[in-house]
Amino acid sequence: MARWEPNARERLEKAAMDLYRERGFDETAVADIAARAGLTERTFFRYFADKREVLFGGASALQDLLTGQVAAAPRALGPLDVVATALDATSAMFEERRPFAKARQAVIAAHPALQERELIKLAALAAAMAGALRNRGVPEPAATLAGETGIAIFKLAFEHWMTDGKKRDLVHHLREALAQLKSVTAGKERRPPSAGPRSGRRSR
Amino acid sequence: MARWEPNARERLEKAAMDLYRERGFDETAVADIAARAGLTERTFFRYFADKREVLFGGASALQDLLTGQVAAAPRALGPLDVVATALDATSAMFEERRPFAKARQAVIAAHPALQERELIKLAALAAAMAGALRNRGVPEPAATLAGETGIAIFKLAFEHWMTDGKKRDLVHHLREALAQLKSVTAGKERRPPSAGPRSGRRSR
Repeated sequence: MARWEPNARERLEKAAMDLYRERGFDETAVADIAARAGLTERTFFRYFADKREVLFGGASALQDLLTGQVAAAPRALGPLDVVATALDATSAMFEERRPFAKARQAVIAAHPALQERELIKLAALAAAMAGALRNRGVPEPAATLAGETGIAIFKLAFEHWMTDGKKRDLVHHLREALAQLKSVTAGKERRPPSAGPRSGRRSR
Repeated sequence: MARWEPNARERLEKAAMDLYRERGFDETAVADIAARAGLTERTFFRYFADKREVLFGGASALQDLLTGQVAAAPRALGPLDVVATALDATSAMFEERRPFAKARQAVIAAHPALQERELIKLAALAAAMAGALRNRGVPEPAATLAGETGIAIFKLAFEHWMTDGKKRDLVHHLREALAQLKSVTAGKERRPPSAGPRSGRRSR
């Protein structure tokens, strides 16, 4: 029996991220991760099924949190506001993991197959939120559109949150992204017709 | 030298769709497709790199059409309206291929790896439209949000178009999907607070 190791999961995560960035994901073996963390492979496999799960193991907890929040949101909210409320609730979970999130994103950005996996994860989250909205009585296609636009907001907010020099929290960036989406879909990005075809590149 | 075969591409597409649905995608070989179409394998490979390309070979033409339309849209349009205009322009291309589109969708729906490939294709289309919007001077994050919501509209409209008993054209369904998206993001799906928590499932 292996003895209990303090912070084993966090140590393994950190070791994995460091190695994925130093050597690349494909070039890192579970044995390397365990060794870097000062733990055994056996301990690694108590937390993760494989080295990819260090990156994607949080997806099911995130999905459960989101669908639970969608189910529990006030009845009076419209579908996109329900989704926005659910996304807000993930902030606490991510806030203490900003360095991990940043490292994870860098690893994924460097590896096309991991990018595809991330895309599939996000599509599954959109579908799960749409399902939870239907369970609240939201009809189609509003449920699917709210789930998909919610994920578009989440992606944008998450990216801004990770790179925010001022360290504002995820909720701040979610609110901004929602406002930007509403502005785009309301057509408020419209260029005034008088600007004409030669007015060149816009800057805001 | 193989002789020219009339409608070889269409015959190969039809044979492939029929076999993918009868036997399954994994159980169909290129030789089977060629035989069913009354053509040689050599002719097959003149049109398609492999059996997956029968399903996904149209993606680059679609992407070129969309980015070209985004570039050429009137300057006065806002980014989401630019994307909507570009999507409208695909209607003619799809209209004569409704039976192929339906068969293709059924094949993809039956095969998780093909669903993933479809997801990746759509994400690439969203990114390409966002890039074309930036080239027009649309700032971020409006460009990315317009590209992603455009693809959400397209998916919804395409699904409704394929199953439309009244055979209304894709443009009709694109306009409807855009209106529904605008309604969801404007919060018009909001349930009146007076409806209370026990009002049960809504139907529109």
